[in-house]
Amino acid sequence: MTSRKSLRQQLHHIIFDYDTIPAKAFDLVLIAAIFMSVTVVMLDTVRSIHDAWGPLLYGLEWFFTILFTIEYLIRLYATESRGRYAVSFYGVIDLLAILPTYFSIFVPGTQYLLVIRFFRVLRIFRLLKLVKFVKEAEFVKASLMASGRKIVFFLFFVLVTVSIIGALIYLIEGEENGFTSIPKGVYWAIVTITTVGYGDIYPQTVLGRTLAALLMIIGYSIIAVPTGIVSAEMAAMHEKMESERKHSDSCCQSIEHDADARFCKICGRALNRPA
Amino acid sequence: MTSRKSLRQQLHHIIFDYDTIPAKAFDLVLIAAIFMSVTVVMLDTVRSIHDAWGPLLYGLEWFFTILFTIEYLIRLYATESRGRYAVSFYGVIDLLAILPTYFSIFVPGTQYLLVIRFFRVLRIFRLLKLVKFVKEAEFVKASLMASGRKIVFFLFFVLVTVSIIGALIYLIEGEENGFTSIPKGVYWAIVTITTVGYGDIYPQTVLGRTLAALLMIIGYSIIAVPTGIVSAEMAAMHEKMESERKHSDSCCQSIEHDADARFCKICGRALNRPA
Amino acid sequence: MTSRKSLRQQLHHIIFDYDTIPAKAFDLVLIAAIFMSVTVVMLDTVRSIHDAWGPLLYGLEWFFTILFTIEYLIRLYATESRGRYAVSFYGVIDLLAILPTYFSIFVPGTQYLLVIRFFRVLRIFRLLKLVKFVKEAEFVKASLMASGRKIVFFLFFVLVTVSIIGALIYLIEGEENGFTSIPKGVYWAIVTITTVGYGDIYPQTVLGRTLAALLMIIGYSIIAVPTGIVSAEMAAMHEKMESERKHSDSCCQSIEHDADARFCKICGRALNRPA
Amino acid sequence: MTSRKSLRQQLHHIIFDYDTIPAKAFDLVLIAAIFMSVTVVMLDTVRSIHDAWGPLLYGLEWFFTILFTIEYLIRLYATESRGRYAVSFYGVIDLLAILPTYFSIFVPGTQYLLVIRFFRVLRIFRLLKLVKFVKEAEFVKASLMASGRKIVFFLFFVLVTVSIIGALIYLIEGEENGFTSIPKGVYWAIVTITTVGYGDIYPQTVLGRTLAALLMIIGYSIIAVPTGIVSAEMAAMHEKMESERKHSDSCCQSIEHDADARFCKICGRALNRPA
Repeated sequence: MTSRKSLRQQLHHIIFDYDTIPAKAFDLVLIAAIFMSVTVVMLDTVRSIHDAWGPLLYGLEWFFTILFTIEYLIRLYATESRGRYAVSFYGVIDLLAILPTYFSIFVPGTQYLLVIRFFRVLRIFRLLKLVKFVKEAEFVKASLMASGRKIVFFLFFVLVTVSIIGALIYLIEGEENGFTSIPKGVYWAIVTITTVGYGDIYPQTVLGRTLAALLMIIGYSIIAVPTGIVSAEMAAMHEKMESERKHSDSCCQSIEHDADARFCKICGRALNRPA
Repeated sequence: MTSRKSLRQQLHHIIFDYDTIPAKAFDLVLIAAIFMSVTVVMLDTVRSIHDAWGPLLYGLEWFFTILFTIEYLIRLYATESRGRYAVSFYGVIDLLAILPTYFSIFVPGTQYLLVIRFFRVLRIFRLLKLVKFVKEAEFVKASLMASGRKIVFFLFFVLVTVSIIGALIYLIEGEENGFTSIPKGVYWAIVTITTVGYGDIYPQTVLGRTLAALLMIIGYSIIAVPTGIVSAEMAAMHEKMESERKHSDSCCQSIEHDADARFCKICGRALNRPA
Repeated sequence: MTSRKSLRQQLHHIIFDYDTIPAKAFDLVLIAAIFMSVTVVMLDTVRSIHDAWGPLLYGLEWFFTILFTIEYLIRLYATESRGRYAVSFYGVIDLLAILPTYFSIFVPGTQYLLVIRFFRVLRIFRLLKLVKFVKEAEFVKASLMASGRKIVFFLFFVLVTVSIIGALIYLIEGEENGFTSIPKGVYWAIVTITTVGYGDIYPQTVLGRTLAALLMIIGYSIIAVPTGIVSAEMAAMHEKMESERKHSDSCCQSIEHDADARFCKICGRALNRPA
Repeated sequence: MTSRKSLRQQLHHIIFDYDTIPAKAFDLVLIAAIFMSVTVVMLDTVRSIHDAWGPLLYGLEWFFTILFTIEYLIRLYATESRGRYAVSFYGVIDLLAILPTYFSIFVPGTQYLLVIRFFRVLRIFRLLKLVKFVKEAEFVKASLMASGRKIVFFLFFVLVTVSIIGALIYLIEGEENGFTSIPKGVYWAIVTITTVGYGDIYPQTVLGRTLAALLMIIGYSIIAVPTGIVSAEMAAMHEKMESERKHSDSCCQSIEHDADARFCKICGRALNRPA
């Protein structure tokens, strides 16, 4: 609340917080820059655009890389504990998002460049930094955490099903119909149970088609399971948040409860008391 | 409630309201005309139908255009504040739905005709006028509004995922397997995560197929998230509407509550009182 | 409960009811016969099976047709009001399910035979008679009725969306990429928004692919709407049925409520009283 | 609780229970071994891997088969009632998972080997043993049981729909467009209603496409039904479990209820009392 702050404190406030106008402006500019730099990386892979605008895109890539490097250094300077930021999730992502461009200078060989491009892709992770600005993420995350173990069990069930059916289809259809191995059969089973259905491999015998039809019906029915799990969790969380919200602006903090009361007699809310 | 009205008031009533028999009849005729005119536009693009019935369809198109022009002028005349209607959402749509046909007279060149056809498509927006007649839209809209921010966050998550995986598949599969650029890889990732799966591009290496399988499982699982969000919101809204409906025909309006009551002691409903 | 019944009453009991052992046995045999007769019709269309077993299948078809004809006549005889059964939903289906085979005698021409096969397909409707035996159908039906209007609004929204996008894709892609008319574009839009994705038509321009990606994301997101609607309705119905079930075997019928009570003081259930 | 146990009791504890460190370790090793043996079977079907590592994979297959055989014999020895284990679900699976490898010695003919591979696939069922370790399975299973009959009715409705539409599409499209029989039409209808959409068969006439569009919209809409059913059941079960959990650590066990009380006056929970 004191108005006088060191440069470092001011920078820290602008970069790491987002509750004043300059801090918000910084965040918005940063987000726009991230989006633009990712777009540049993407467009550069389109041959016709690369041929026409290659040097410009190359320049822009370096511009954004230097910009993000300066931002990274300021973050390192402004933060209270340098080490903790550097090894934190966002600190590592911030670093990985600028390194590939520098690496591409020292390793100029063509065949290696492709590998460098692979690292370049990591720059897209910079987008993940946006997540922390979206409040709603908390709700979704909490619901998914609560239903996490059930979803894992569900995915395990899917894995077993596609393994068995992938092996069966390999035995039924065989190599002459494109199912050259069990892993390929499992790939086909995943393509089918998730209802993607590319059509690059599909069964051609009567038995194979019957199995495929069965798998589709299974996939179509069990999609209800994760949805049901998440819906139930979200409905429960919704109710909880709603009752907490209602309560927090009305009651209980200001009144005294009877000694044996387990529920607030004014608002009906369950009280958390030692038994 | 007075039975004598000016012509303008009567027209306004017939055109803008829908609680009397003439007003309802007008709406039904209008809806039928919109459907027929859209069908005419659509059928005219089928070559065999165009060759056989071209002049008839051209005549019908002009018939509907003139009909809707007269309707537009009557609306302008009947409404209380001409300006507000003209710039309102439906006013603009009403105008855009008749302009393309007139434009096609003054600009007869072949290459421009295609652009005009594009505007012609906007006539289909006329269908949107139907929306206001469907009461249920309110419920759906309110639920979607309530879950809007969560859905936006979800779509953002999908966007980041398809960007990263689109870049990875470009690096893994490369141009020889049809993934000629990162944007094309992102397009493939969207086709896959939404389980559409055209089959125009698909991975052909083992690593690419593994990534594709992973993406399908992700898409198949996270479909639960928006569904869960909307289900939870709708369940909450349903409960709220139900309790309001029940309450409105029974209680509270007719009894006096104690000074410190926050809940109706007869029906248990929370009272909206100044704190 | 009286043991002496006329033959007609006994037949009526066996055929139309399903609460005693002979009545249940009749139903099970009937269901099995329907399934077998449908299978015979289906298998007869497979060329290799038709060539090998044609006469047997033809004989079986006549066997089932005569069986169902006898059943139809007994139903006509056993029912109290012949006319009402004959024009009822199941009466008409029962008749339509046996007529095609008889028609095929009097109209032997090849080209007409195909039309007769079309009617033959109606025999599959016989399966619908099974529905009345499944109690759970009531729950699903009641939920769908309650959410019916919202679903209709949703389907209308889908219809408008695919019309607009179908027209846009026709203008963007054009005939050279397979989008030969707006109706074909609308067909493509339906294939895409429902995530079926055959891959017989797909966009090939950058703009077309962007529109397709947008449509997929829309389809992937709005699938949440009907699911949310039905889930909310079913949750509400579930709760209602549960509270009614709990209540019916415990309370309220046997106790007297206070004059001003709106809720049962023993079980907390809302009382239906004139206001 | 006694510390001295016979070897058999100790083995039984380690193999069949999972509440101490050695028992947990055994389970984890077993799960890892199952995963590895399944992977070996799968990889052996990939031609390039088989050519390069064939003998190693063959050796590993025998290693795991002997390992699981020893495990099976120890289970037989350690269990209290040998017969009950041998005929139990897991007992039979344990046996089927080791037999195929032994059969492949005595029956060396090539054509029979394929059949043996089919049995080999059953080894994947060994994975199912994992299920009992996942507690969350109970919740999912209970919800699915509760909604089981509704799901069966739903699947029956889907079956009738695809039968009717499969027959219609056969009549509309005919053999020249790939719909060579009604069963093939039904297969196409399943591929379409489940939104898989391989694209190996698709309608090419206007009428056929209209029917396909209708079927897609049906499939897209009714996916809401099983999801709604399961969501509602899970929400109900969630609430039930939550209220039981809350209750069990707070109330009722320690207080005396009035003679006529049906609900706990402290926590509001329904009491299970003889009527």
